Amino acid sequence: MSQDPITYWLGLARVEGLGIRSAHRLIEHFGSAQAAYTASLTELESCGIPARVAQAVFAQEGLNEAESELAAARQAGCQLLAYDGEDYPPLLRQIPDAPLLLYVRGDVKILSHCALAMVGSRKPSAYGSQVAHRLARDLADRRVVIISGMARGIDTCAHRGALEAKGGKTVAVQGRGMDEIYPRENRKLADKIAENGAVISEFPIGTGPLPENFPIRNRIISGLSLGVLVIEAAEYSGSLITARLALDQNREVFALPGNITSAQSFGPNHLIKRGAKLVDQWMDVVEEFPAEVRRQLMPPESASEISQVDQAASLFEQSMSADQKAVFDFLRVDEPAFIDSIFGGVAIPPARILQTLLELEMSGLVRQLPGKNFIRKL
Amino acid sequence: MSQDPITYWLGLARVEGLGIRSAHRLIEHFGSAQAAYTASLTELESCGIPARVAQAVFAQEGLNEAESELAAARQAGCQLLAYDGEDYPPLLRQIPDAPLLLYVRGDVKILSHCALAMVGSRKPSAYGSQVAHRLARDLADRRVVIISGMARGIDTCAHRGALEAKGGKTVAVQGRGMDEIYPRENRKLADKIAENGAVISEFPIGTGPLPENFPIRNRIISGLSLGVLVIEAAEYSGSLITARLALDQNREVFALPGNITSAQSFGPNHLIKRGAKLVDQWMDVVEEFPAEVRRQLMPPESASEISQVDQAASLFEQSMSADQKAVFDFLRVDEPAFIDSIFGGVAIPPARILQTLLELEMSGLVRQLPGKNFIRKL
Repeated sequence: MSQDPITYWLGLARVEGLGIRSAHRLIEHFGSAQAAYTASLTELESCGIPARVAQAVFAQEGLNEAESELAAARQAGCQLLAYDGEDYPPLLRQIPDAPLLLYVRGDVKILSHCALAMVGSRKPSAYGSQVAHRLARDLADRRVVIISGMARGIDTCAHRGALEAKGGKTVAVQGRGMDEIYPRENRKLADKIAENGAVISEFPIGTGPLPENFPIRNRIISGLSLGVLVIEAAEYSGSLITARLALDQNREVFALPGNITSAQSFGPNHLIKRGAKLVDQWMDVVEEFPAEVRRQLMPPESASEISQVDQAASLFEQSMSADQKAVFDFLRVDEPAFIDSIFGGVAIPPARILQTLLELEMSGLVRQLPGKNFIRKL
Repeated sequence: MSQDPITYWLGLARVEGLGIRSAHRLIEHFGSAQAAYTASLTELESCGIPARVAQAVFAQEGLNEAESELAAARQAGCQLLAYDGEDYPPLLRQIPDAPLLLYVRGDVKILSHCALAMVGSRKPSAYGSQVAHRLARDLADRRVVIISGMARGIDTCAHRGALEAKGGKTVAVQGRGMDEIYPRENRKLADKIAENGAVISEFPIGTGPLPENFPIRNRIISGLSLGVLVIEAAEYSGSLITARLALDQNREVFALPGNITSAQSFGPNHLIKRGAKLVDQWMDVVEEFPAEVRRQLMPPESASEISQVDQAASLFEQSMSADQKAVFDFLRVDEPAFIDSIFGGVAIPPARILQTLLELEMSGLVRQLPGKNFIRKL
């Protein structure tokens, strides 16, 4: 047959009742996906798969759909990486249920770089969002690829933070087919990720956003990465499942500590209690990487960092009211101001200062630190 | 001689140039403090102490002052515990530089109970203060004695929290003589501690609050305890020294995690990174205690806990404005309310709600959780 070898992988992925681990067993036994399709029924049945499934492979089930699937994937701008291909990410290949193939939009080579997964709540706190963004940027600045799931919340912050770094790379692993982006508001983000990394999936074109696919997807997020950093996660949370998968895959688990009075910090604090490494700066992650990986990481492009902050600050200031500007100007980024000193230092009645502070907090320009201290956000 | 044997201990403690470790060596060699004072000069000199110090002991230096010191201690309502006395705390006796004697106001027996030290910043955040108070109360409710230094901030919260538990016991270790309480605003607190535990010091009556005495004092705080819990501490902080001492003394080190954006959480987060156990509830402490200690701990007096909260709530409500009452009534203790739901649920204009929320926060009735969620304080 003169078919693209990838069609045999696509075919096997579509045989009903053939799980990933059984498929790997077939391929190991016969040497390739194509060889499995040309094996005799007796040989197929000897591989420990159900008779019905052996018959289906023998009857070439999946191969017809594979042709149209390949066309659809190319239509959607995807490359396909088979498990035995040169560009298939080596770390991912190590996990026991590695995907048979990956749909990739973007740079396939980036999937083999040194990477950290960042996961967390879809409804993070301001603290979690801000720290996710900053850590992702700091790590991407050092050439660590940031892997996440492009969901709302922490995932989005992590991708955006990585993209903010000069030359920062990030990979989004979708829990559905590559023909649609979910959530929809992240379409532009997906394009940016594909330009500066990759958007990938193991699911066929047209697969909808089924909730049961998210945990399946999560094993790829951790599988591509040297470690998983959990930013915020409530008591029963998908992020804790990802951390569990990472442990099973022998990956490092990192977690951001947080106030025990915040429900979103329950998950990370719990993980730290159970042995995850506490992270309060990018260095805490990098120092756990193998020495040869650490040597490949580049020094930070500190210039990019500074210019970004400057730009942001000037954007903020254009839209402020007079009260907001007065209070904001009084606050500093490097030292918290106690409420009484703001009352004393800004020529506005205290009640208006209180309201202004809350407005500035609500619009994300100012953060309240414990003890009635206020600080400009980074 | 017919003197009280304690005077020989008081005397040795006053011999200039005789450090605590050398004093222990003398006492070990001669069998008692009294025997050291009746030894020959040759014998004294053979103990490896400087000739000048040996001569001073031989000349009975310190014994005269010891008499008046004993009178002053009794005048100040103190008992004295010598290192070889029956009531001297066994855990404290184990440390290499154990005090020769302790001045005790209160119940000497409590010093030998199962205890946890709680230490932290003199300028804690609202988060740190509140959690210190709650953890101290929860642990004291289980019959763990809370040891601290009666300083402003976390120390005071820890003592107060312990006193709030029914039958709760707490011990304050002073860094100065027992004739004065420092800080002065804690005089009433000191009386309550002495009635429900003990106030202790190793320093002679009349010793002022010298800063260099605080680290010396801290070894007693950790020495009396099975472990040390660090609540909040900035980068260069006495609490981190106490944690270091605790490690040297083979005590457990516990720490409260906190947001990495809060300077006060730097210390505890750093300790957790270095191996301290993360604590987010009383159980995390108790489960590290030896099994025989855990068995002695009593089940909680849960009734006391509930009645305390009820009392507090009714006190709060008496002093509220109409706006405050409306917003407070809408909030719950068990589930945070998002700002938009408060706008929707309370019949007051949003600007007034914002101001009222900040007032309630400032007066300690309401806590803002990350992500613009508000909750009643416990």
